[in-house]
Order: sequence, then structure tokens, then C-alpha cells
Amino acid sequence: MDVLIIGGGGLVGQKLARKLVERGELRGKPIDSLVLADVFNPPAVSADFPVESTTCDITDAASVANAITEKTSVIYLLAAIVSGQAEAELELGYSINMMGAWNVLERVRELGTRPILVFTSSIAVYGGEVPDPIHDHSFLNPQTSYGAQKAIGELLLNDYSRKGFVDGRGFRLPTISVRPGKPNAAASGFMSSIFREPLNGQEAICPVDRDFPHFYLSPRKCIENLVKGAELDAADLGQNRCMMMPGRMWTIGQMIDAMNKVAGPEPAKLIRFEDQPEIQAIVKGWRFDLRPEKAVKLGLEADESFEDNIRYYLEDDRPGA
Amino acid sequence: MDVLIIGGGGLVGQKLARKLVERGELRGKPIDSLVLADVFNPPAVSADFPVESTTCDITDAASVANAITEKTSVIYLLAAIVSGQAEAELELGYSINMMGAWNVLERVRELGTRPILVFTSSIAVYGGEVPDPIHDHSFLNPQTSYGAQKAIGELLLNDYSRKGFVDGRGFRLPTISVRPGKPNAAASGFMSSIFREPLNGQEAICPVDRDFPHFYLSPRKCIENLVKGAELDAADLGQNRCMMMPGRMWTIGQMIDAMNKVAGPEPAKLIRFEDQPEIQAIVKGWRFDLRPEKAVKLGLEADESFEDNIRYYLEDDRPGA
Repeated sequence: MDVLIIGGGGLVGQKLARKLVERGELRGKPIDSLVLADVFNPPAVSADFPVESTTCDITDAASVANAITEKTSVIYLLAAIVSGQAEAELELGYSINMMGAWNVLERVRELGTRPILVFTSSIAVYGGEVPDPIHDHSFLNPQTSYGAQKAIGELLLNDYSRKGFVDGRGFRLPTISVRPGKPNAAASGFMSSIFREPLNGQEAICPVDRDFPHFYLSPRKCIENLVKGAELDAADLGQNRCMMMPGRMWTIGQMIDAMNKVAGPEPAKLIRFEDQPEIQAIVKGWRFDLRPEKAVKLGLEADESFEDNIRYYLEDDRPGA
Repeated sequence: MDVLIIGGGGLVGQKLARKLVERGELRGKPIDSLVLADVFNPPAVSADFPVESTTCDITDAASVANAITEKTSVIYLLAAIVSGQAEAELELGYSINMMGAWNVLERVRELGTRPILVFTSSIAVYGGEVPDPIHDHSFLNPQTSYGAQKAIGELLLNDYSRKGFVDGRGFRLPTISVRPGKPNAAASGFMSSIFREPLNGQEAICPVDRDFPHFYLSPRKCIENLVKGAELDAADLGQNRCMMMPGRMWTIGQMIDAMNKVAGPEPAKLIRFEDQPEIQAIVKGWRFDLRPEKAVKLGLEADESFEDNIRYYLEDDRPGA
């Protein structure tokens, strides 16, 4: 297998690369090579097989043609402009999230090699007046440009798969927590930082109440699901190749209780609750009552409890872990 | 009101133009001008106000900029590559149905004039394993490239409306019957020709059984709904500006009975039943159990019975009518 990760420099791309290196195989076959492509040259990952880092601008068809070659057998398309930036910079969001996906699919059509393409969509495709709970056959009514662009990517992936140009699989990622790294300005940033910073001995602000519910998945389970996603049998996907990735709904209070159980009561004392109406206005519009029946049936998994999410952060990501 | 019909040379565009001329007003204001734009110069329509015919290639941003000007207050975007051709010519379908819609929306964003945009989607957005009946909040899982492109157009329309660049309204058209004109090669062609040809004294072939069900609307009601669609209050549209246009489900047998009631028993004798497996393979995948609750609530209408569809053809479209 010759694997390409577009967006190979990001959090998920790097973790996925390390997981593939650790496994050494995909779909029952040895991995012969791995290419990490991103707008910047992604950090190298060492392996028993050749790993290459390369730059790729998915808005540019020629750049995409350089990254995807005749020998590419599995593509992960993780690259995207994130929610806040796509909302602020409309053209940039459409050119990367919509046209970028289309460029990848057109390149694959041109090659005629029908690779596997794993596409990361997002639960941001859900919204509007669609009744809860959200099932596999609920209408996608995104309320952000990012969500609209991801929903368009899904339609493209399905159509190019139906036509036989690609063997596509799309997964709507839950909010990933606990994300490693530095705090960022994303509206969802607190959903990781209120655990990560206290676990690292630093203070963090929670801008919503303890009873705020949302839908979460750990980075570790996300990566495992992305590997399984490439390994699913196309025949099991049916007429819609995109689905929710499993996750679980927790309130902030439940998540803090989980942290207390795993790490003792000290970290939670570093969380300061401070209403932030502008953040609440965004995150309270998000959907959380999601039922990923199809993905669960296909063997993808959520974390058992948020205690797992905390443990995985400590094991995988805490500085010095 | 300065109205532009993109696709003004087609069946729906021409009928809509004549309806607007007859009304002379839209949204309670006089129509000051009407522009009919299409890939060919559309036939002229005479009116008390200026009517202009112009060519417009929606795949070309400069051509779109010529057609949509600062004074354009209502745009009908009817232009599309139809189902069969979009399936056969993938690039053409995406460039007109997807990129064309995006070019129109980008032009409007550039102008900053926030016109009303009425977009014709299609019930071809429905398909896959989505359970019957199809409601307003059912998942769109198109099984044709045409359907995928229309679903993408809807996502774009919703996003650009949400961002305030346009006041968009999208309507998923049922199969239009009885369509005037010559027989064509569309898989749905027989759904009009088995009435039109016999009513004109000619033989027609029906490739499916009498119990084949589908979802229909007359051209007359379609035009009335497109006018109402422009007149709806944006506040009533909620967070999804696209909806099914009302129609009714009939079997071939029910439709023939309706023709017998309106036109006597002679025309139906000219229908020859002849199984055509290749046509059946396409049309039997189409969805017909559709519940257009939102559009009905907003005042859009289906035909009362298929007798109306027959009568409207005789009154509006039969040669010499």
C-alpha cells in the first residue's frame, strides 16, 4: 500500500502517520510508502518503509497532481480551513474545502486508478430546524460555511464513488477532546483546554455552564477509526459513503467528574467558570444528540467514558508523557 | 422590480416570462424590466415593460457579470444540464450545475445588492437507503450526478443566504407532466409523452406497468409556485431555504383514468405498453413518496388531480390550443 495523507502536518495527520508506521500494514497488506503532504513541509516521521514529506496546495490542480500519483493506493484527505477561518474568509474556505476536494477527486478520475479516499467531514454539517436526535438519515443543514463546504465534499465523494472513480469513505468527526497543544481561538477551544491546561498545572476558563452538552471523541479513537475507515469493505457502505464517526455526548460537569476520577481533585480547581456570551452564541447552536448507528454497526468506536479521553491525553500527549 | 431569468430560453423560463408579463408585478411592485438569458438568445416575449434577450454562459464569470447588474432585484436560476447529459458528461455537468450556481452567487456577493434568487433544484436530490416517506428533514442522497450537483447548489444557496449575500429560495421540482413539445430521450420522457402524443392523435410507448408510481406537477402549477417562491417572506423560510415543490403521487393507471375522464376513451387506445428494462432500471430508482409539508404550509400548491394536468395541457399547450 502506498499511502498519502493530505493534511499530513496537522494534529490528526501526524498522529495518523505515527499509527500507520506502528502498524506497518493497512487492509492486510504491508505499507510500502507513506507521503505526508501539507501547505508547509510536514515534520518527518521515521519508519521501516520510505516516508516522504512534501508541500501540496490543494487549490492548485498541478500541485495535487504531483502529490497523487499512479501508485497512490490510499489517500487521506484531512486538509481543511477550519470553522472560524472559513466563516471569516469565505473565498479561502470555498477554495480549499470545496475546490480542494474537487481537485483531489478530479485528479483521481484522471488517473483512473480508483484509490481508497478517506475524507474527514465534521458534525458541523448538522444544524437548522432538523429535529433531534440526529440519525444517519437526518438532513444536513449546516449553519456555518465550513459545514456547508464539508457537506459539499460529501456529495462529491459520494458521486465520484458511485461513478467508480474512487472508493470513498467520509466520516463526520465529533469535537476532538482532549486535543494536545496550545490554546487556540476556536470557539470549541475550551472543550480541550479546560482539561489540558489544568492537567498541566495551568488555569483555564470555561465559558459555558456545567450542564452544557456536546459530542466528543478522543484523538486516539479518532485515529483508530480513520484506520478502520480505510479498511471497511466498500460493499458494506451502501449508497451513502459518509457517516458520523462515533462519539459520546457529555456535559462539562460529567467531563470534569471524569477528570477528578482519573487525575484527582486538584486539576479541576484550576478551571474558572466565566460566562462568555459570544462563545455561547456559537457553541449553543451546535448539535450534540447524534446517533452514529451506521458507523457503530461497521465497527467504529467511541470512547467508553470520558475517563478514557483524560487517560489517553495523559498517556499520549501530555508534555513529557 | 428588475427580473432576470437565467435559463430564460427553456420550457419553464419561457412560461415564467409570459406569466410575469401577464402579471406585470412581483412582490407587490411593478416589474420595470425583464431579462431573458440563456446559452442561446431566448425567444422574445412582448410586454408593456422592456424585455431583453441576451446570451449568458454561467460557467464564465464575466458573462454572468454582464447578465447580473446592480439593478437586478430578482434572479431566477433555472439553467442546468439535465440528468441524462450530466450523467454522461461529468465535467460539463459540474461546470454548469455546480460552478454555474457558484458563479451566480459570487457575482451577487461582489455586487452587494442582496437580490432575491429563486433556484430550481430537483427531486433527483433524493435517493439511496433513506427510508420512505421522504419528509422535509430527510437526508439528500442523490444517485445521479445531476442530483448531486443540485444538492450542492442548495448548500451554496443556503450558505450565501445565511451570510446575507442573497435572499435565496430553492425548490425541488417534481417531474413535470404534461410537458409540451417533442418527445425526447430523457428516461422520464414517457411520463409526458404517453399523454401528449395520444392527445395529439399519435401513438406513444409506455415502458413501465400501469402501477408504476411517481411524483408529478403540471407546468402551470410549477410556474405559479415559482412566482410565489419569489414572493415568500424570507422570515418564513427559516434555516433551510430549500424545499420540495408540492406535487402528487400517481400511478400510470390513475393518470390514464384521468385522461379518459377529461378527453374521452380514444387517446388512451394510442398508448402501447412495452417493457423497456433499461428505462425501468433508471426510473424505478426514483423516489415518489414525498411529503412537501413546508412548501404546502407556505402556500405553494400541487394540482388537485391529474385531470387538472390533462386540462392544463389542452388549454395551455396543445398545438392550436
